[in-house]
Amino acid sequence: MTFDQGPLVAYNSARMTGIAVQTLESYLADKRALVDRALDDFLPPAETPPSVIHEAMRYTVMAGGKRIRPILAVAAAEACGGVVEPLLRHFAALELIHTYSLVHDDLPALDNDDLRRGRKTAHVVYGEAMAILAGDALLTEAFSWLAAPVPLDPRRQLLAIKTVAIAVDSKGMIGGQVADIESERSQGRSDDRAKLAARLEFIHRNKTGRLLTASVLLGGILGGASDAQLDALREYGEAAGLAFQIVDDLLDLEETAETLGKTAGKDLAQGKLTYPSLHGVDAAREQVAALLEMARAAADRVGSGPSHLVAIADFICRRRS
Amino acid sequence: MTFDQGPLVAYNSARMTGIAVQTLESYLADKRALVDRALDDFLPPAETPPSVIHEAMRYTVMAGGKRIRPILAVAAAEACGGVVEPLLRHFAALELIHTYSLVHDDLPALDNDDLRRGRKTAHVVYGEAMAILAGDALLTEAFSWLAAPVPLDPRRQLLAIKTVAIAVDSKGMIGGQVADIESERSQGRSDDRAKLAARLEFIHRNKTGRLLTASVLLGGILGGASDAQLDALREYGEAAGLAFQIVDDLLDLEETAETLGKTAGKDLAQGKLTYPSLHGVDAAREQVAALLEMARAAADRVGSGPSHLVAIADFICRRRS
Repeated sequence: MTFDQGPLVAYNSARMTGIAVQTLESYLADKRALVDRALDDFLPPAETPPSVIHEAMRYTVMAGGKRIRPILAVAAAEACGGVVEPLLRHFAALELIHTYSLVHDDLPALDNDDLRRGRKTAHVVYGEAMAILAGDALLTEAFSWLAAPVPLDPRRQLLAIKTVAIAVDSKGMIGGQVADIESERSQGRSDDRAKLAARLEFIHRNKTGRLLTASVLLGGILGGASDAQLDALREYGEAAGLAFQIVDDLLDLEETAETLGKTAGKDLAQGKLTYPSLHGVDAAREQVAALLEMARAAADRVGSGPSHLVAIADFICRRRS
Repeated sequence: MTFDQGPLVAYNSARMTGIAVQTLESYLADKRALVDRALDDFLPPAETPPSVIHEAMRYTVMAGGKRIRPILAVAAAEACGGVVEPLLRHFAALELIHTYSLVHDDLPALDNDDLRRGRKTAHVVYGEAMAILAGDALLTEAFSWLAAPVPLDPRRQLLAIKTVAIAVDSKGMIGGQVADIESERSQGRSDDRAKLAARLEFIHRNKTGRLLTASVLLGGILGGASDAQLDALREYGEAAGLAFQIVDDLLDLEETAETLGKTAGKDLAQGKLTYPSLHGVDAAREQVAALLEMARAAADRVGSGPSHLVAIADFICRRRS
């Protein structure tokens, strides 16, 4: 993972974040190591019977990845003055949910992707049946982790579970994926630009945005946020989440399979509805910049001190891999 | 659904349950109607966008079924003196989990079943992608319902969520399904009878037993059970759950596709490991009777008054459809 002043968004990082690039990189590396350790500690060992599913779960989860969702939860909890250490398992549950969604999306019946993060996808290695069940198991495990005992007001923990669940349900993340599939199937059948734009926004806000927003909300709820802080975190998450997805569209357009480690240009080849394909690359870049400003304004309302939330939003919108 | 003095298990129902057959039938019908109403009330309406997934979710959940798991939760809560009405949504979540497991098990990559409860399975009607996502959505919705606010000690609710989650995780229900798939694949490669018997017990206890046990535990936990009552409920659930699965094996052996509404005799045709195929039909029937006695003894320890738990265990072991 490189931190690169790419052409996607032009702005002054130091001005926006107040945190030096090196500091953010260390922060991300530190938190990522914590998340990785929690994942390794709490996932069932690969040899637990029936071992094949535990191997498949670990294969997909431990394949790498930026761990952006748990790190967002950590940063949100810190911004609200929360103590993060006892919550790492709960925050790592976000990565299980993210991974389950990738495993199922990659299946032949869905996106039919053979490569992910430069490695063979779960169904290629373990077969379709085991990939389906491993995805199911990761989602289940996530709720088990979210319900794990922690010295907190249990009402907050219940709210946290509910918040995550509704973010990834049939009206949230899964709904976004369904709308995406439907959009591909009906491709070309509508030339109503306003309708296409509304559909695209629904897909983006739900497929990626809801879990990212739930990530900062989870950090806030378990980190002791006030209602006002939760409102600000929600605004931050929605803006950063939408920016993240538009950047993803831009990356797909610009990158090659070699640097991305997945079949790039695929969206375009499929004539898939994306932000740049609908609004153009320049408008997409401007939108990312505007969303980052919104995220910054919202993050400023979360806490008085400097937080890593802005720098992270900034970072995920300049990622090159 | 008929209530029939079938040949599977011979015993005196009145002696075992103390509740007349008609009373039990009314009880089951009443509770089933309550569960059906909760499912209808709380599942997103079919027209909620994206509508196709909400149609698919309702198609599978509202296809019928005995609602045994939620009813077991109701009976357990009542046996512990709990008030059931505010908990129906939480108990109905068990049916969502059961349905998700059926939808995914029926997929071409798994059991490849085209019929379920006499109707076309979800993937036949909605396609594989939507069946996978509808299953995911039902599982997610279940945890959302389990976390829904209720006037109870929130610590009990967290324990309830955790209890259900670990019952259906990769070491529980999903683990049982994985072991079942592995067993079919390795069929004939082991003639070590003790090993086969151990594997079969693992499959039965996990694939069906864990969710049934979690159902009575959920009722007990939310219904205010003491630790001693929860122990008794767990024993009851494990015995009844194992009996249920052995009866399922026996049914598959004895029934025709016409009465069952699914491809009967399939287990046998595939040379699948089942209790009667391993131990013989007579031993299987005796085992069911012995397990029912264990369930009765455990149920007696739950409450002082008569409960429907014994009658339900009895009922599910005499079911003919």
